[in-house]
Amino acid sequence: MDFKTEFKPLTVQPREIESTSFEIITEELGEHPFTPEQYPVVQRIIHATADFELGRSMVFHPGAVEAGIAAIRNGNKIVADVRMVQAGISKPRIEQFGGSVHVYISDPDVTEEAKRLNTTRAILAMRKAAREAVDGIYVIGNAPTALLELIRMVKEGEARPGLIIGLPVGFVSAAESKDELRKLDIPFIANIGRKGGSTVAAAAVNALAIMAEKKA
Amino acid sequence: MDFKTEFKPLTVQPREIESTSFEIITEELGEHPFTPEQYPVVQRIIHATADFELGRSMVFHPGAVEAGIAAIRNGNKIVADVRMVQAGISKPRIEQFGGSVHVYISDPDVTEEAKRLNTTRAILAMRKAAREAVDGIYVIGNAPTALLELIRMVKEGEARPGLIIGLPVGFVSAAESKDELRKLDIPFIANIGRKGGSTVAAAAVNALAIMAEKKA
Repeated sequence: MDFKTEFKPLTVQPREIESTSFEIITEELGEHPFTPEQYPVVQRIIHATADFELGRSMVFHPGAVEAGIAAIRNGNKIVADVRMVQAGISKPRIEQFGGSVHVYISDPDVTEEAKRLNTTRAILAMRKAAREAVDGIYVIGNAPTALLELIRMVKEGEARPGLIIGLPVGFVSAAESKDELRKLDIPFIANIGRKGGSTVAAAAVNALAIMAEKKA
Repeated sequence: MDFKTEFKPLTVQPREIESTSFEIITEELGEHPFTPEQYPVVQRIIHATADFELGRSMVFHPGAVEAGIAAIRNGNKIVADVRMVQAGISKPRIEQFGGSVHVYISDPDVTEEAKRLNTTRAILAMRKAAREAVDGIYVIGNAPTALLELIRMVKEGEARPGLIIGLPVGFVSAAESKDELRKLDIPFIANIGRKGGSTVAAAAVNALAIMAEKKA
């Protein structure tokens, strides 16, 4: 069996695949409510999930995309709630502006304090982030508790993130935590409903980083 | 504002959240075609995505779950196509049986050979996996090209994985690569359609690892 004749798609290079995919997404999505600035984020999320329903569920604070691009270009820290979100973010794209991607959930001080206070590591990790990455981009793809804690800190003046990307997934508190996020008048990217996840959250960051690059 | 009264869900611990979620999933999914062995994999995938359509699209080779549990309990290597899949797999659950999780796509030899042969790193990483992790579990959450190369190697007798978890996502070749996988008569876990991704692939491995643990 000749490898090249049997599997033609194998000769297609990654960049061509991406551009073909983006054309298909635009065609199949049709009319949508997103601004030209927001659309690349939605497009990349659909690209990462093949889920148009999820794409259509996205909601943006009016200043969100601009704030995200500015924070990346300024080299502000990015905080992810879990390793999987961190793994999905294109590091070279962030690092070229002096930025870096952090996860605090497995830090020894976070683990110890969670035990002592009988609460979750996700919550304590957000409190550490508020100290370590003051004007950072907070990216939550997994834990609703992390997002709820972040919202509490914003309300009480304990945190002032440059942007919150709040896209936790799940059946308990995920949709509710995003409902709370959408009430804040600070830059956020979120969605409506249970869907979300690490892949989706990382895709949002990567879309912003690509836009930051293009403005360079 | 009192933190505890304002956000009741915050006091719910992760394990309780998971068990409540699993009850909701079972209730909302209703009738389904999966065996009692397959269902925990489907349930964990829905848990990770909140996507019932994706859950229902899952397809299992008859021997797949049993083969996956046996491979994990035997400490066979697990190969992920990308770092994000690796990051999503619960390492302690794999390592307790002597197993480990590998990603070859960024290895210098893979990168160099990809340039030399003018092909993708995803393909070369699978070829390296076939040498380094002969009877391993191959987990593909991102690259259809990796899955197509793996299928080619199986057909030509160059690879004999213990299990293929083939769940690439996307608009170009993803669905087609899974159609090809489902024609093989070796243990596989796949789905029908464009959906899939790192989160989904990692969830499948974690479900198998939990079943392996319960049999211990």
